[in-house]
Amino acid sequence: MRGIGHGAWTRAEWSKWGLSEWHSADLTRDSLVSYGGEPDLIIHCAGSGSVGFSMAHPSQDFDRTVVTTRDVLEYARLHRPHARVVIPSSASVYGNAGDMPISVNAPLCPVSPYGMHKKMAEELCLSYAQHFGISVGIVRLFSVYGVGLRKQLLWDACNKLSRGPATFGGTGHETRDWLHVDDAARLLLAAGLADHSSRLTINGATGVGVPIHRIVETIAQAFGSAGDVRFSGGGRPGDPLHLIADMQGTEVLDWRPTHSLDTELGHFVEWFKSGAP
Amino acid sequence: MRGIGHGAWTRAEWSKWGLSEWHSADLTRDSLVSYGGEPDLIIHCAGSGSVGFSMAHPSQDFDRTVVTTRDVLEYARLHRPHARVVIPSSASVYGNAGDMPISVNAPLCPVSPYGMHKKMAEELCLSYAQHFGISVGIVRLFSVYGVGLRKQLLWDACNKLSRGPATFGGTGHETRDWLHVDDAARLLLAAGLADHSSRLTINGATGVGVPIHRIVETIAQAFGSAGDVRFSGGGRPGDPLHLIADMQGTEVLDWRPTHSLDTELGHFVEWFKSGAP
Repeated sequence: MRGIGHGAWTRAEWSKWGLSEWHSADLTRDSLVSYGGEPDLIIHCAGSGSVGFSMAHPSQDFDRTVVTTRDVLEYARLHRPHARVVIPSSASVYGNAGDMPISVNAPLCPVSPYGMHKKMAEELCLSYAQHFGISVGIVRLFSVYGVGLRKQLLWDACNKLSRGPATFGGTGHETRDWLHVDDAARLLLAAGLADHSSRLTINGATGVGVPIHRIVETIAQAFGSAGDVRFSGGGRPGDPLHLIADMQGTEVLDWRPTHSLDTELGHFVEWFKSGAP
Repeated sequence: MRGIGHGAWTRAEWSKWGLSEWHSADLTRDSLVSYGGEPDLIIHCAGSGSVGFSMAHPSQDFDRTVVTTRDVLEYARLHRPHARVVIPSSASVYGNAGDMPISVNAPLCPVSPYGMHKKMAEELCLSYAQHFGISVGIVRLFSVYGVGLRKQLLWDACNKLSRGPATFGGTGHETRDWLHVDDAARLLLAAGLADHSSRLTINGATGVGVPIHRIVETIAQAFGSAGDVRFSGGGRPGDPLHLIADMQGTEVLDWRPTHSLDTELGHFVEWFKSGAP
């Protein structure tokens, strides 16, 4: 298993992740040809990962998400036409979806450049599948979390609550569908090992919606400040109230989420308290 | 009025088209900054123009259509945020549309990389309009024709019929919505001069479907071989039977198509007979 991407890791570091090679390089057709080996499965995780970044730098966000996907697909078309290509997409392609849980057949109405670029990356995959027979898998990840994530709700909540009582935006009754990063990684792999003849589009989540207040209260408890959580009450514009995935299509995969949210929230807080090494 | 694009034209040539400057250059943000002046209206006609090319070279087709559109929009965002951006899109974004005439609200299901890339260029326009306030106009051109076009039905028919009796694919009862290139150019301009506050998406056509056999017979007549036209009868896969535009939305523009199809078919054949100079 080879890896290409941005990261000046030592051999000890990448070996720990099960890689036989790691190449710190831009993801381009050239770097894929040089370092890619002869892959049967390409999991294309390079790309942008922030709505805020996409608003500040839409052109770079496009390059990172859309152009790299084009390069991976073009590499597959020209050099590895029988390889399967899997991309992590995002629940952001749905925008403010209406009905919960969200089916993969729901209309795609992204409300950020980030979401639009993910949608465009999906469209490229479908185009290469339709016209050039490339086998593709698209996994629309919902709220991925886990030790090491230095942004978003868990990280912000730890930072705030470690300093005492805290107020959070929204009502706390908004729901998100949380997926531990290990489960997400195994899902990408399962999507890659699924029947190669088909185009697969699935949601990456658990199918269970958990309200924000429950996450924040669990973290507050771990900091011994359980009563000190407030919500400002206002809605956050552009932020959907509920995001819960319809997991239809994943039952045929060799995959079930195995990580318990409560246990992993505990691990996250421990990691934070130990200085987030 | 300035122009940037691929074309080693003499001053006499580009002056004839009403340009005050012409720069033969790739369309990039740099070339726009260098040569673009201070435009209030940008009509972005650079891009690919062939389904066949997009099948043979999907990556270059993506660069020409999608990446150049990103560059134009990014130039507008950073340097000319009040300029209006107009792009010619294509009826190919609809794919095999069901109901005729085709409304701009019909689902977009392109059936070629070319059509998919046009769809993606549209999506970038809508994203820059929504998130960065860029005023955009999208004109989905149908069957544009006119003297000078050395490809597609009219050109092929002239070539075949100039040599005698000829057989054409399909039944001849397929319909297309023909728009003369001068009417198309004036429509792009009208879309550029329309109310800047809105995002405008319109079809570029006349709203009238004309069967293929009528086009071919008119050309055959001009070659004195009126009885010598045959159709092979089979359908052409991926080629929609009918493409007729719903022109709703154009009535508010300062535009009507003014060129008569019969007259212009005559001009086309004259031009062909004179050696297509």
